[in-house]
Amino acid sequence: MQDSGNCYKARLAIAHQQLPCEMVPIDILTGESRTPAFLARNSNGRVPTLELTDGTFLPESNAIPWYLAEDTILMTGDPLSRAQALRWMFFEQYSHEPFIATIRFWLALAPDPESHRVQIDERRPGGYAALDVMEQHLGAHDFFAGDYSIADIALYAYTHVAEEGDFDLSGYPRIHD
Amino acid sequence: MQDSGNCYKARLAIAHQQLPCEMVPIDILTGESRTPAFLARNSNGRVPTLELTDGTFLPESNAIPWYLAEDTILMTGDPLSRAQALRWMFFEQYSHEPFIATIRFWLALAPDPESHRVQIDERRPGGYAALDVMEQHLGAHDFFAGDYSIADIALYAYTHVAEEGDFDLSGYPRIHD
Repeated sequence: MQDSGNCYKARLAIAHQQLPCEMVPIDILTGESRTPAFLARNSNGRVPTLELTDGTFLPESNAIPWYLAEDTILMTGDPLSRAQALRWMFFEQYSHEPFIATIRFWLALAPDPESHRVQIDERRPGGYAALDVMEQHLGAHDFFAGDYSIADIALYAYTHVAEEGDFDLSGYPRIHD
Repeated sequence: MQDSGNCYKARLAIAHQQLPCEMVPIDILTGESRTPAFLARNSNGRVPTLELTDGTFLPESNAIPWYLAEDTILMTGDPLSRAQALRWMFFEQYSHEPFIATIRFWLALAPDPESHRVQIDERRPGGYAALDVMEQHLGAHDFFAGDYSIADIALYAYTHVAEEGDFDLSGYPRIHD
């Protein structure tokens, strides 16, 4: 799905490595991720889902870049820095996406944004809390885990469209740079 | 924190390998994860956080078992099965914990469960959806990614206390076994 930050993570990992692949558009707004055919590929009904040439399916927006990055410069080197990359990727899924991506989805993609106003207001502080954690880290580090890696891809995906969810990034110069 | 499923993941990975470690209790209910001293260890203010002997801190309940499991039998072997383990660990953080762990927290640990009744009712279907995905997978596989691994640790942590959140597991024989 073109507008999905989660799909963007996979596309960015693929583009960095110029991997040959076929993109199959799935529109979650019209239920295409909940059809029997799609659920047979990913029982959790979410995009992106990677299909390998042997017919294996790999779901999850952060597991796909991890798999594609093994043994490339997008993967951090030693076990501790790999774990730190994962730390930021789990942070992205639990402490960032439910706030920043979900609010942006409601405001920029879903029909009738105002019907989600209460939830948007409830989730707004969690989004800024995630941005605070990122800003603090980037004050002392150029990237999230060692050099540019899949951790940066994971966090860039929805942060770079956070303003579509009415997040004001003007107080976050490190993130903005 | 003894009652935290996220801390339990780290303890289980440590126990499996009989690693020497010191446990430092942090009570999130009294704000101990939000003190300046704790935030200096993990700016996201969450438990568990692992401190290594060199003073490095590694946050995130699924990144810690991953790090501790590198080069052990708890880590799945080839790149694809490692990615599938991660797939289930990201599933746990995004599609399982916000429903099953959060409802259990509100009902079993937090003060005044009834004040969360609307949120509990809103999140209940997401919890059963996660259990459905797990049950379906376990109908065709003994474990989540190859042999018993950190993916099973991640999903066991909150599933084995789901009944404290009033989830009825009687319709989930594979999970129950």
